[in-house]
Parts: sequence; structure tokens; C-alpha cells
Amino acid sequence: MQCEVVAVGTELLLGQIVDTNSSWIGEQLALAGIDSFFQTKVGDNLDRMVEALETALSRSDAVIVTGGLGPTQDDITRDAIAKVMGVDLVRSTELVERIRAMFGSRGREMTDNNLRQADLPEGTIPNPVQPGTAPGLICEVDRGGATPKMIYAVPGVPWEMKQQMVGGVLPDLQGRAGITSVIKSRTLRTWGRSESGLAEALDAEIVRLDETGVATIAFLASGWEGIKVRVTAKAATDAEVDGVLDSEQARIMEIIGDVVFGFDDDTMESVVLDELRERGLTLGIAESLTGGLIASRITAVPGCSDVFRGAVIPYDRELKVSVLGTSDIPAVSEQMAIELAEGARRVLGADVGLAVTGVAGPTPHEGHEPGTVWIGLSINGRTDSALIDFPFDRDRVRQFTCISALSFLRNRLLGSKNADM
Amino acid sequence: MQCEVVAVGTELLLGQIVDTNSSWIGEQLALAGIDSFFQTKVGDNLDRMVEALETALSRSDAVIVTGGLGPTQDDITRDAIAKVMGVDLVRSTELVERIRAMFGSRGREMTDNNLRQADLPEGTIPNPVQPGTAPGLICEVDRGGATPKMIYAVPGVPWEMKQQMVGGVLPDLQGRAGITSVIKSRTLRTWGRSESGLAEALDAEIVRLDETGVATIAFLASGWEGIKVRVTAKAATDAEVDGVLDSEQARIMEIIGDVVFGFDDDTMESVVLDELRERGLTLGIAESLTGGLIASRITAVPGCSDVFRGAVIPYDRELKVSVLGTSDIPAVSEQMAIELAEGARRVLGADVGLAVTGVAGPTPHEGHEPGTVWIGLSINGRTDSALIDFPFDRDRVRQFTCISALSFLRNRLLGSKNADM
Repeated sequence: MQCEVVAVGTELLLGQIVDTNSSWIGEQLALAGIDSFFQTKVGDNLDRMVEALETALSRSDAVIVTGGLGPTQDDITRDAIAKVMGVDLVRSTELVERIRAMFGSRGREMTDNNLRQADLPEGTIPNPVQPGTAPGLICEVDRGGATPKMIYAVPGVPWEMKQQMVGGVLPDLQGRAGITSVIKSRTLRTWGRSESGLAEALDAEIVRLDETGVATIAFLASGWEGIKVRVTAKAATDAEVDGVLDSEQARIMEIIGDVVFGFDDDTMESVVLDELRERGLTLGIAESLTGGLIASRITAVPGCSDVFRGAVIPYDRELKVSVLGTSDIPAVSEQMAIELAEGARRVLGADVGLAVTGVAGPTPHEGHEPGTVWIGLSINGRTDSALIDFPFDRDRVRQFTCISALSFLRNRLLGSKNADM
Repeated sequence: MQCEVVAVGTELLLGQIVDTNSSWIGEQLALAGIDSFFQTKVGDNLDRMVEALETALSRSDAVIVTGGLGPTQDDITRDAIAKVMGVDLVRSTELVERIRAMFGSRGREMTDNNLRQADLPEGTIPNPVQPGTAPGLICEVDRGGATPKMIYAVPGVPWEMKQQMVGGVLPDLQGRAGITSVIKSRTLRTWGRSESGLAEALDAEIVRLDETGVATIAFLASGWEGIKVRVTAKAATDAEVDGVLDSEQARIMEIIGDVVFGFDDDTMESVVLDELRERGLTLGIAESLTGGLIASRITAVPGCSDVFRGAVIPYDRELKVSVLGTSDIPAVSEQMAIELAEGARRVLGADVGLAVTGVAGPTPHEGHEPGTVWIGLSINGRTDSALIDFPFDRDRVRQFTCISALSFLRNRLLGSKNADM
């Protein structure tokens, strides 16, 4: 069973709205075991919508079309489907009543436009789930095959679309496909090696998986979130697919375990908080060029307050001296990074002080080029430091400094002096 | 000239990444006066990529394909284009040198995989702009017409894609299309009124523009960036289109000027910095629940250091007292917000102290519900405060607190006591 997605709306083509519906539907299809090889965006234009639907039906068994089911004149998904099916639109008295009741219960006035939403291409049935005023459509399209091709129309409003997908479309699709298998993914979060370096390290394993077909590996470069390595497997039961993922994870960890910092929903900040919590350590931060980015990532994690004490952002060099008690030395230096970490620990009353200082750019500072960054760390008075030279613009220097500093702390907590940051 | 967009990547179909590239490209095409009627997503599969490219070329004059130009085995956009063109891939010595030099300057080791990025379909030229290791491609495809059809390949990494689009693809497309009319947009940045409220206020003006056809107005709800009001106009010359935008901007400002904080690339933080700079005032921040988000937005603006002194993030309540010298009172209170602002001014040596304290959630704190936020402000000792009650989740409470606090400061600087925050 192959199912495409067609998202309808001129505003999608113009970039006024990002099409997140197709992404969500694609994910649901994958998890439901249904292949989806093409997704198309098309504007509110009858001929082009018909063309997009015809193209999709010509190469797939089913198509989910999202959007264009509203009450206004440019909502013409119903018309496009009728044209593809070669039938007329018929007003459904059942749907008229359903829509009328919905308006009544909300105390809103129904306009004649809303009755357009009760029009169905002849021979189709409405989606049994209808949380809003837009009915979804389930349409069998006879193309001469043993079984009909399918068009499912769902609204463009995300919460209505999702309820109709889960309650109506996916069960119907799976029933028609006779699907019983389970597909799952697991993500290994990495930091410290390039995408091509990871691919080369895992090359033999990728070839092996290609040959056996038990699972697939994909890489996902995600900026200052690092590079994600995703393993996906398919099996008859939930337990079986978990088993495949467990054993594949173990194989991958043997090869690149030194740069894996977490799994699935873990983030660098969540794992650092967990490592600190396990050791009963509290954290204070002094961040200069990142200006609050590290602390804001830490505090994005609910429940961080048992570990995170607070931070000082001594953006002006004077404040490094006056608030954190450092010596009156250049800001971009190893000694400053270490004294900032010590100061953060002392002033913020923390066991661990983490500090960054350097040049975000765009212009040099104190004779140092943009991208020059010192990390300082003090764990109960034991200090450590690192120098990094980022070849990036201001935003990315700041972002990569955040995850590098947190990774540096994580590696020191784990006792690995030699791992990459 | 019609140009489609094809986004390549199995992870896009699986919903692991939302395809924001196509949206951005669609917006740029619209602003460049080039029609784009279809956008397609396809996985990393040679046959299906070829099919998507062929379908696009069959109905349009050009196609921009984004993604699949990386160094790994599943990056096969080069191969797909070669197949569509019916030519071989040829390794470009010029590109090999360019990529080698790039790795050299960053002190990183180049793997053999990276050399794949130097392969070009025979007869194509590389995009003149190449910010990363992935060269873009400009490919003429002979389909028997008077002029060749075009395929432009750009990387999937957004910042590389954008630079190649602006510097290479759009000028080439416009040149081939013989486009001489100028389309420009201007964005009015607003904060403090809902989208439907803005639409209602501007209703008569939108009707007037519909009738005269000189310009269009669009609304773009953008989370903690506020709601953008975009005016787009088309004219024969640059000067003419600027004139239309200027007079339309003046009309709109008369209607909703009280909630417009900036234009185009302005952000709330950049305009606040400008207002402070004009008055010769420096800024210090004490932020608790936002944990560094306000300071990180401020410091994202290059050149902020003449105004921004620094910040303290007293996440633990003890630090409010010990570092910023507040009284030993509950954290979520008006007095605490004001004392934090005073403390930030004093400890950070600033003219203006801005503070936020409250409950981000997900659980209540000190008996207050998530979303309860106090803003405190001290301008040379003159204090002010505001209470907000956000009906949002943790992330959005933190985000909306940032822009609300900055907007509060801006309004006080402008002397408007009554404007919405």
C-alpha cells in the first residue's frame, strides 16, 4: 500500500504558512506501516488540484488531501475530487443537520457558505470523526483495478486534521492494506564528529543492514543539536521490533559510542542535568559571548531547579571583575575562563562552575578573531579549560559554544579526558 | 516563467524534519515575480527523484531541488540530475580544490566521501556562491524547446541554501525570465493585538487595496516575534515600488501605529537597544523564569555591547537576595520584580534595570499558577511594574515573557503609559 499526501493552499506555496500537516501525516503513515513516497503542495486552483490528485493516483494506491474543505469560495477540494471521480457534488441532508447542530450548540450564526461544507462528491462517505464544521471525505475511485483507489480529504486546521486521521483515515487505510506489522525508530544523539565521519565509521554496518534488511540507518545533521543517527526497524510485533532496535543500538554503540550523548528525546542539557543530579552536584554558569543561551537551554528543561543555581552574564568586562571577582585581565584568555568558572561556583553557591568567554563576532576583539572561544570549568575547585576556534558566523559561534561547553562538562563528569568535545 | 520546488530527503517524508526550505524558496520566488504552482517532497531514492524531476520539468520551465548534495551515500541529487540530463558525472578539479581548501582552512580532515561533492553532471556549472562544502548546481536541460529547461540544485542546510538562492539561483532565473518589473514587500512588526483584531482594524484598507490593486496586505502570526503585517507591491521601477510602499505604510501606521514596534528586519530587541542608545542609557537584566532568554536575544544583536552591561539569572531564590540584594520575600511578587530591577541596575552598573520573575510551569510555585509573571523596571531609580497571566505551556510562557518585558521597557522609554504590552 502506497499513500501520497497532497497539501492544498496557495499560502503554502507562497511560504506564508509552513506545511507542517504533511510532515505529521507522513510520520503517522510511516508508523502505521504504510509507504509514502511523494508529498505535493498545490494552490487553490481547480485544474492544478485535479492534476496533483491524478498524478498521485497514477503512482500510488491512495492519497490524503489536506486543506480546502472550509466554507469560503477558495475552498474547492470537494470540487476537485468530484472532477477526478467524474461525478457531481450532492448536498447531504445528514451533513447539513450535523453542521447546523454544531453552529447551534456554539451559539454562532450559520451562513449559507457553510452549507457548501455539506456537499459530497456522489458516492462518497463522510469521515466518521468530525470535530469541527469541516467534514472529511472518504472516496473510492474506480480506476479499473481489482480494488478501488482511495482519496481521503481532511481539513487543513491541524487539530481537526489529526482527529480525522487517527479516528477515520488510518484505520481505513490499514484495514484495506491488511497491515499487522509494527515500525519503530530509535535516535542516537551524537556530538563531536562530522556527518561524513559518522557515515564512514558506520559504513560496514550500513552495508550489512542493506543486505539483511532488518533495519535502516539515517543521519540527520541538526546544527547545535548535533548529528542524529536514526535506526528504523519493522517486525511482526512490538516486542520483536524493540529487540531488533536494542541489538542494533548495541552494535552502533560499539562503533561510535564515544560520541553518543543520549537517545531519542534526550538533549545535551537534559543529560548533563541528569549526570549532575546523580552525583548530587549543583551548577552555576558564567557566560559571556553566549549571553544567556546556555542558561536558557538548561532552564528549558522542566525540573532543572534542583541542580541549576543560576548564572551571571558579565557581558561587559568590568562585571567579570566586579560581580564574579576575577582578576583584571583580558577577557579572551584561558585564565579568565578559569577564573570565571571559579567565580560562578563561589558567587552562585554551586559545586560546579562552567564558563565561556570569547569572540562571537562579527568583528575581532582584544586582537582575537571571531570564533575564538575559551571554556572554563571548576568542579569543586578542580579546574580545567579548553580552547576552540569556530569557523562560523556570530549566531553559530554562540550556538556551537553552548553545546560544546555542555559537552565538555559532560565528558569531565564521565571522566573521559580525551573524548572530543 | 514557472518554477517548481522539489525537496529531497526521506526524513522529510517521514516527518522527522519539517520542510521549511520549500516555504522559504516559495516566498522568494513570489517576491522575485516567478510563479510556483507545485512543490514536491521525495525521498532519497534515485528512480523516484528522477520521476519527481521529470514531472516538474514536464509542466514548468525550471525546478529548484533542495537537499541530497552532502557527502554521504544517500546524497544522490547529483546522480538523479545526471540521469534526467542523460549525461555522466564528472569530477571537477576546480571543485576538488575548493573543497580541499575549505577543509584545510578549518583544520579538519577531508574524507574520500567529501570528494563526491566535486562531481558534476557533465555540462553543468557550479553555483558561484558556495558557503559550505556542498557546491550548488546550475543545469541546462535540453527538452527541444527554444530555450533549455533549468534545474538548480541547492543544499538542504538552510543557511547554505539561502546564500546560494540569493546569490546564484534567483538572479539567474530572473535573467532568463526577462523580469523587469519590481516586486517588493515591507513588513510592519506588531505586538499587543490579535490577528483578528488587526484584520478587523485594517478591513476597510484591505478592501480599498483589493479594488485599486496597488498592493496587498497579509498577516503572519509569528509566535513570540509577534504578528507581522506584510504589504507587497509591484511596479515598473524600484523607486516607484518604494513610493507605493511608503504611502501604504503611512496609511497603515495611522490605523495600527500604536502596536507597530518596527519594520522589516527590526526585532523587539533591536529597537529597544536603539531606543536606549539614543538616550545614552545602559541596560542590566535580572531574569528568573526566562533563565537567560531575554539576555540571549539582546546579545544576538551585533554591537549590543555599548548598551547592554550584562545580566544575572538568580534561578534559585537565595541568589536573588545574595547576588542582587533583594529583600527575603516571595519570588513571585510585585515587590520582588521591582527589587530585582533595582538590584540589576545597581549590581550591573546600568542606568536601566529590567526584571522578570514568575512561574513558567508545568507545576505551580509559591501557590501561583503557571503563567503568572511579574515584570519590574527601574529607569534611573524610577520604578514600574506589570502583572501578566499567560494561558500557555512552559515554553511559550518563557518566550512571551521575553517579548512582553522588552515591549514594556520600550513603551516606558517612549513615554506611552497606556499602550498594550
